[in-house]
Amino acid sequence: MAIKKLDELVQIATSRGVKKIVVAAAEDDHVLNAVSSAKKAGIVEPIFVGNTEKIKEIAKSESIDISGIRIVDEPNPAISAKRAVEFCVTGEAQILMKGLVATADLLRAVLNKETGLRTNDMLCHIGVFELPAYHKLLTITDAAQNIEPTFEEKVKIINSCVKCLNKLGIEKPKVAVLAPVEVVNPKIESTIQAAMLTQMNRRGQIKNCIIDGPLALDNIVSKEACSHKGIVTDVGGDADLIVCYNLDVGNAIYKSFSYLAGGTIAGNILGAKVPIVLTSRADSNRSKFMSIVLAATN
Amino acid sequence: MAIKKLDELVQIATSRGVKKIVVAAAEDDHVLNAVSSAKKAGIVEPIFVGNTEKIKEIAKSESIDISGIRIVDEPNPAISAKRAVEFCVTGEAQILMKGLVATADLLRAVLNKETGLRTNDMLCHIGVFELPAYHKLLTITDAAQNIEPTFEEKVKIINSCVKCLNKLGIEKPKVAVLAPVEVVNPKIESTIQAAMLTQMNRRGQIKNCIIDGPLALDNIVSKEACSHKGIVTDVGGDADLIVCYNLDVGNAIYKSFSYLAGGTIAGNILGAKVPIVLTSRADSNRSKFMSIVLAATN
Repeated sequence: MAIKKLDELVQIATSRGVKKIVVAAAEDDHVLNAVSSAKKAGIVEPIFVGNTEKIKEIAKSESIDISGIRIVDEPNPAISAKRAVEFCVTGEAQILMKGLVATADLLRAVLNKETGLRTNDMLCHIGVFELPAYHKLLTITDAAQNIEPTFEEKVKIINSCVKCLNKLGIEKPKVAVLAPVEVVNPKIESTIQAAMLTQMNRRGQIKNCIIDGPLALDNIVSKEACSHKGIVTDVGGDADLIVCYNLDVGNAIYKSFSYLAGGTIAGNILGAKVPIVLTSRADSNRSKFMSIVLAATN
Repeated sequence: MAIKKLDELVQIATSRGVKKIVVAAAEDDHVLNAVSSAKKAGIVEPIFVGNTEKIKEIAKSESIDISGIRIVDEPNPAISAKRAVEFCVTGEAQILMKGLVATADLLRAVLNKETGLRTNDMLCHIGVFELPAYHKLLTITDAAQNIEPTFEEKVKIINSCVKCLNKLGIEKPKVAVLAPVEVVNPKIESTIQAAMLTQMNRRGQIKNCIIDGPLALDNIVSKEACSHKGIVTDVGGDADLIVCYNLDVGNAIYKSFSYLAGGTIAGNILGAKVPIVLTSRADSNRSKFMSIVLAATN
């Protein structure tokens, strides 16, 4: 199944029932607005941890209805992050969201070996893009979390993202491993890794997807660019997921998609026991809302 | 002076007078068409080296007027490249263009220590983009030539690109050094290099431009994204040139600009005694024409 628009995620999320989302340091107008929209859409039921007084103030000035929502008073943001994580450990919440707390503090709580949300997977960022110039959703990893993942870590990242796409109903996501050229060149590490990942997929070492690479970005998004180069590929021109070599590449494409190609993104951190929503103030309202929706499909 | 559209380059090129362009292995319909357009616009006067018979055949079937154009018959593409380079060494031609010859063969002729076009500069690719979502031309380097330039090589690349932009009338190009974050992080090499390049510029070690980095791509193209992060910068939001860490990054952005952000590119190889036009078949006609125009402004 191909998903063309982010809006289609709303239906998938609602079909999963209402999820509990816990917000760490919820005293943030942008976050409260996004959570409120998702609540109205019947997708989530929030729990706010944070500075109760400030949360109520913001709700009032932004006309956000917070009646009936559980608020756990914890004015210290770092401790608020710990408390929010506890809700996910006990299963009382199925989604974790960052409010007005430093990302480092939130991730410290998530990664705590005893009280956190670690799994055997890597924490990684998935960015699901709706782009005017592409015929379906296009996902990229890793644009925000891992600076320079090792090869083994990259396999884990792919597995997490494939699992996420499988849950969206994309049974065999087409995974393109990005490189600057479409040929294997021993001088370009990204092309070496691409060949390895492709062959691991053929050998059944990475499942539930079709991997192909190296592919340059034009080959990934355009079948015509593939024919120009005579590339025979099931993935090129129809990719669901782009695997980037490192953060330099992933972040640059992410920003290019957002700021120059008119893209809207739904982003999550995967690899913990629950999906984590980590929006930034610069994200559009739709993007913040869609990030919550994406987490709710998992 | 800010240049908003690639079309403005035509006027700059014509103000420099008619340049001689020599085409290696000119028996290529796309190349002949582009050169013919540039000739009609009064920008270049061509010399064709290559398979005379095929050149005449193509000219006939494509209705290209080649009357009065000098043709040097050399059916072997690699030798044709050498002959074309000779025209540039002697000064008979001021622009070199690739026809139906392998890039490697052309560059071998260019880089030949005795008979080539080497200078003390690095060969590097400059890509000048017109983008619907940006308020002026946006240039990137290096998206096509150098896989993993060293820091010293990057300085040379910047100098070549700045020289090229200076010739377009952009007296002090704003040079953004791209990284995945806007802060210096000793774990991210691109941010280290960005800080070094910025400071070298302040110390007068790199001249005729204003360098700032590290900047993420959103900070480079959007002043609003800079204010969101509290970044004080003369370059952010108004960059003329983006310096990419390596080919993985440069090529990915280049393809993203071309295929998803609706960009049109004029591309040249700089750093040899003459600018080199090296278009690919997948480039649009406008892009091929503009690449010749860009070379003619130098």
